[in-house]
Amino acid sequence: MPTPKEKPVLDCPFRQTLDVLEGKWKFAIIHSLLHHGTQRFKHLERDVAGITARMLIKELKLLESHGIVTRRPYPTVPPTVEYSLTECGHSLAPVIEAIQAWGMQNRTVLAAGK
Amino acid sequence: MPTPKEKPVLDCPFRQTLDVLEGKWKFAIIHSLLHHGTQRFKHLERDVAGITARMLIKELKLLESHGIVTRRPYPTVPPTVEYSLTECGHSLAPVIEAIQAWGMQNRTVLAAGK
Repeated sequence: MPTPKEKPVLDCPFRQTLDVLEGKWKFAIIHSLLHHGTQRFKHLERDVAGITARMLIKELKLLESHGIVTRRPYPTVPPTVEYSLTECGHSLAPVIEAIQAWGMQNRTVLAAGK
Repeated sequence: MPTPKEKPVLDCPFRQTLDVLEGKWKFAIIHSLLHHGTQRFKHLERDVAGITARMLIKELKLLESHGIVTRRPYPTVPPTVEYSLTECGHSLAPVIEAIQAWGMQNRTVLAAGK
């Protein structure tokens, strides 16, 4: 059991990681980029079911600021932008795979809780 | 790249798992229960740094409703309640460990992004 003297959890890499990946959208965006590779904005928006364009822009900017996603604009008409995972982003694969594996193992529980 | 005909992601166990574990608190609560085992409410509140009692009650109820946490009240004066992970909750250990491992590997990135 923890004692009051224990180091605050906020200083730990676990909690800092949760701050970076907060919310369900970032995991879903990383999952999509891992699964489908580099994607244009429109493709990402379609793949991350339920997300709005505004929210996707916001989440991608945050992921970019943390070095998890890179944005590559092309000088086409109309302009196109592609998003990829960085090496740091790719290193999140074990987290995404663990969530996926748990979801598959608990399909029945998840379906019952709908 | 995804096509418009692809199965909506909302139906997949990955997204359903994110819905169950939404927000940073649930991961932090499960992390604490994995690390310290069965805990009284007050100990959990102290260990999950930054959480309010009201939010902890809400999150524990949600985790209990999804079969991840069990609540055991004792007829003491004043009443005490202990919280533990169920077998299903314990099976989230690989997810928590993967997040922890990523955080440890990316300490520098996380510290820079503060």
